[in-house]
Amino acid sequence: MNQTCTVAQLAQHVGGTVVGDGAHVVSACHGLEDADAVHVSFVANAKYGKHLDTTRAGVVLVAPGTHKTVHRAADLPPLALIEVKDPYYAFQQAVVLLHGFRRQPAAGISPLAVVDTSAVIGADVYVGAYAVVAAGVTIGAGSVIYPHVAIMEQARIGANCILYPHVTVYDACVLGDRVILHSGCVIGSDGYGFATHAGAHHKIPQVGNVILEDDVELGGNTVIQRAVTESTIIGKGSKLGDCVVIGHNTHVGPHNLFVSQVGLAGSATTGKYVVIGGQSGIGGHMMLGDGVQVAARSGVLGDVPAGMQVAGTPAVELKLARRVAMQQLTLPDLVKRIRELEDKVEKLSAAGPSA
Amino acid sequence: MNQTCTVAQLAQHVGGTVVGDGAHVVSACHGLEDADAVHVSFVANAKYGKHLDTTRAGVVLVAPGTHKTVHRAADLPPLALIEVKDPYYAFQQAVVLLHGFRRQPAAGISPLAVVDTSAVIGADVYVGAYAVVAAGVTIGAGSVIYPHVAIMEQARIGANCILYPHVTVYDACVLGDRVILHSGCVIGSDGYGFATHAGAHHKIPQVGNVILEDDVELGGNTVIQRAVTESTIIGKGSKLGDCVVIGHNTHVGPHNLFVSQVGLAGSATTGKYVVIGGQSGIGGHMMLGDGVQVAARSGVLGDVPAGMQVAGTPAVELKLARRVAMQQLTLPDLVKRIRELEDKVEKLSAAGPSA
Amino acid sequence: MNQTCTVAQLAQHVGGTVVGDGAHVVSACHGLEDADAVHVSFVANAKYGKHLDTTRAGVVLVAPGTHKTVHRAADLPPLALIEVKDPYYAFQQAVVLLHGFRRQPAAGISPLAVVDTSAVIGADVYVGAYAVVAAGVTIGAGSVIYPHVAIMEQARIGANCILYPHVTVYDACVLGDRVILHSGCVIGSDGYGFATHAGAHHKIPQVGNVILEDDVELGGNTVIQRAVTESTIIGKGSKLGDCVVIGHNTHVGPHNLFVSQVGLAGSATTGKYVVIGGQSGIGGHMMLGDGVQVAARSGVLGDVPAGMQVAGTPAVELKLARRVAMQQLTLPDLVKRIRELEDKVEKLSAAGPSA
Repeated sequence: MNQTCTVAQLAQHVGGTVVGDGAHVVSACHGLEDADAVHVSFVANAKYGKHLDTTRAGVVLVAPGTHKTVHRAADLPPLALIEVKDPYYAFQQAVVLLHGFRRQPAAGISPLAVVDTSAVIGADVYVGAYAVVAAGVTIGAGSVIYPHVAIMEQARIGANCILYPHVTVYDACVLGDRVILHSGCVIGSDGYGFATHAGAHHKIPQVGNVILEDDVELGGNTVIQRAVTESTIIGKGSKLGDCVVIGHNTHVGPHNLFVSQVGLAGSATTGKYVVIGGQSGIGGHMMLGDGVQVAARSGVLGDVPAGMQVAGTPAVELKLARRVAMQQLTLPDLVKRIRELEDKVEKLSAAGPSA
Repeated sequence: MNQTCTVAQLAQHVGGTVVGDGAHVVSACHGLEDADAVHVSFVANAKYGKHLDTTRAGVVLVAPGTHKTVHRAADLPPLALIEVKDPYYAFQQAVVLLHGFRRQPAAGISPLAVVDTSAVIGADVYVGAYAVVAAGVTIGAGSVIYPHVAIMEQARIGANCILYPHVTVYDACVLGDRVILHSGCVIGSDGYGFATHAGAHHKIPQVGNVILEDDVELGGNTVIQRAVTESTIIGKGSKLGDCVVIGHNTHVGPHNLFVSQVGLAGSATTGKYVVIGGQSGIGGHMMLGDGVQVAARSGVLGDVPAGMQVAGTPAVELKLARRVAMQQLTLPDLVKRIRELEDKVEKLSAAGPSA
Repeated sequence: MNQTCTVAQLAQHVGGTVVGDGAHVVSACHGLEDADAVHVSFVANAKYGKHLDTTRAGVVLVAPGTHKTVHRAADLPPLALIEVKDPYYAFQQAVVLLHGFRRQPAAGISPLAVVDTSAVIGADVYVGAYAVVAAGVTIGAGSVIYPHVAIMEQARIGANCILYPHVTVYDACVLGDRVILHSGCVIGSDGYGFATHAGAHHKIPQVGNVILEDDVELGGNTVIQRAVTESTIIGKGSKLGDCVVIGHNTHVGPHNLFVSQVGLAGSATTGKYVVIGGQSGIGGHMMLGDGVQVAARSGVLGDVPAGMQVAGTPAVELKLARRVAMQQLTLPDLVKRIRELEDKVEKLSAAGPSA
């Protein structure tokens, strides 16, 4: 069951100001378009503000001053607004307040799990049926290991982690606290390292590991290759989407956001707060400075200085990339104009100085 | 063992006309190039019609009138044709007739599966070893749950579904009837939703679910994110390839075809019969109308009206995209021509009006 | 524990020549930049040669003659070099010598595995807890089947293979010897084959299989579709990265290297020693000749003759692709120059013959 609260209580919780009926009771969060009176919704992007004129939501979290721009027909139900500096963060708080996070299974080790006698399991840990915890593994207090998770030898899992079904953590990999791994994640499989010699590709043992720092979350079926030597690192607080692939010896900085299907080749490095859009790729050994933003579907083939926004393949400064993308579409016209110029110049030359 | 049939029987089954020996017996389907007398093959694309002059297949399913275009050397074995309006569909019928679908395990619940006592399991369901069916789950009659499948709390599986090994269905997700999920599919992992505030990315609980309607099929390791609120939906009869990622709150319409490695960002919407080629990406909140076709490796960054074919990144109308792609390759030549024009115009200007 | 050896022993092992102290003892491989005296490192690319002036590694594997280019400050610890023709292969040999490959579990079949009585298991095979080996499967001597692996009916696994947790091998697929499959690989799921008829997409039973020849290695979560009829083949010694998808009936030649997130559509064919960079896609039915190299993020839409290097989408000859990519960035300038030319020509025309 969801919690309920009044609009005024919610406003207090998120630090906002009520415009409308503070006594109205809400019980769930919902998208703006087909919400009804029990619902909390939000507008974080002014582009969607027009829906405020028609929504049937009970209350909407909006930016300060928004109430002045709303014009609602008389036959619509009343709409309360909560004006707050960061409506999207306020929405996050509202979802946590009314719905909470997924209720995890109660602590306890399933008799159907295989936990090696040498493994060290903290307090209040859940290990589900058919999970396998190998020799020398440690699992910190409060962690949740779902059914079918495989944790190989000497891996270390921090406290309050959640590993969903079918996650594999290879040997000697290290997870910090509060790490969340969605189903099918592969942590520490061998890096793609082969020395081609005399016609064969000789496998280089990948003897490093993977370190996922505190508060990392990885989407479904994401793969982090272990380092050839030393460590592949995903920095504190970074969040990666689904089917992302991180090459060996890559160092992802703290608080990065990589959308689904991104790929980073080996030995790449990113700074703090780097954002990479979906399906983009970063070449091997590239360095992305703090705050770099890479648009979706870009291919980064060179280092990118801190703070720069890039797009395209090869990725260049965002504004140039956009301008080039627009002008490419005029190529048929440009070709025609060049042809016409050639004709005219030909005629002028023929008429020429003798004219 | 495969079934066998005569060419005449097969023609009757697919509603086609025999040209050649209707009494010839065939027993298997096969590619055209190295087929032999027992084989049924097909030509759906006239481009491959030339192989009819040399194939050793017993019978080939072809478009009406094809027999007039075939010229075979005297020393080749006789070739029967079945002329039929839709040879590819006829081939589908032939494969079903002669080979059938994969024989699934007999109904029954493995004593090595964990099925919560509150789960409701229909008639003739198979649940394999080491599958886990959590509290409140329902599974419809005739469904096949392979070993290692994890179905989390309150999920609902329709009738005659097939879930291959290592599929995860998260809590509260809903599958219609005859849904097929290949190994490693992740249904309903958390959507990629974080509110960045004061330097940290705060996880937004994803309290919606995923709905896969009837007759959906998903390839291996495909991930469908659950909605933040409400549902991520894959419409009836839609077929997605491998390693596809569908963002939260996205609504895929009925009868869509998405090839492998496609990605749809959050809150995108597609109409009926949309086709998306491999490795293409659709931006967040984009709307694709009925019958839209997106070429492989395209990036759709705007809405696409019904019936339109698009290609490229950013995706534009297919013919323009192709023309631009061709003309880009002439850029070195265009640059040269511009330089030459500049020289000539320079000379003309110098010679100028005073000439 | 790692092995240890002297620089002279290592030089003899890799067939190189010592420049420096052959008696120095090393015990581990490490990246060049933060190595110390016990470490072996390498420089395979002259670009990274400058690090030789400052590294604190005990010994570095380098190309012949490199010692002449090294200039080290007097206060740095002594550096030994081993000059050898192929330093990267020498490094591979060093890692094997000092670290070895992952120590695999001891042979034996877990009492918690399900192995069908009709399965034929070779000598010295390991089958981990919760693995499922179905009817008619064969597993060759020395193979390692990790927990949670699912091997479906009639599949054949060669000798000395390693299947990591959560691998699925579908029915009737065939693996050669020494095949390595990382976690989450899906071998032989149904090819993407549907015949669209009267508004529905009819599934074509995929009755072929997958053949992985000897010494193939696949990264995490890679998917190989089974053939509609006959076989999808990955040739001997080929190495594929993570989240790669190979379509049905595709034939990958021997000794290919495909980096992560590559996709090959159905019925494509590659020759020997083909290399495909990350996130690239190959269209259906395309043929890539021996030694073809495809740059990262390319889209191959036509056949590519042997030995050619290609890049871009649609992929063209590498040098042209690079030149075009550079010149695209000058489009804003080209447009300006065309506009200026038009102005000048307009003026010249106006001044014209009457001048």
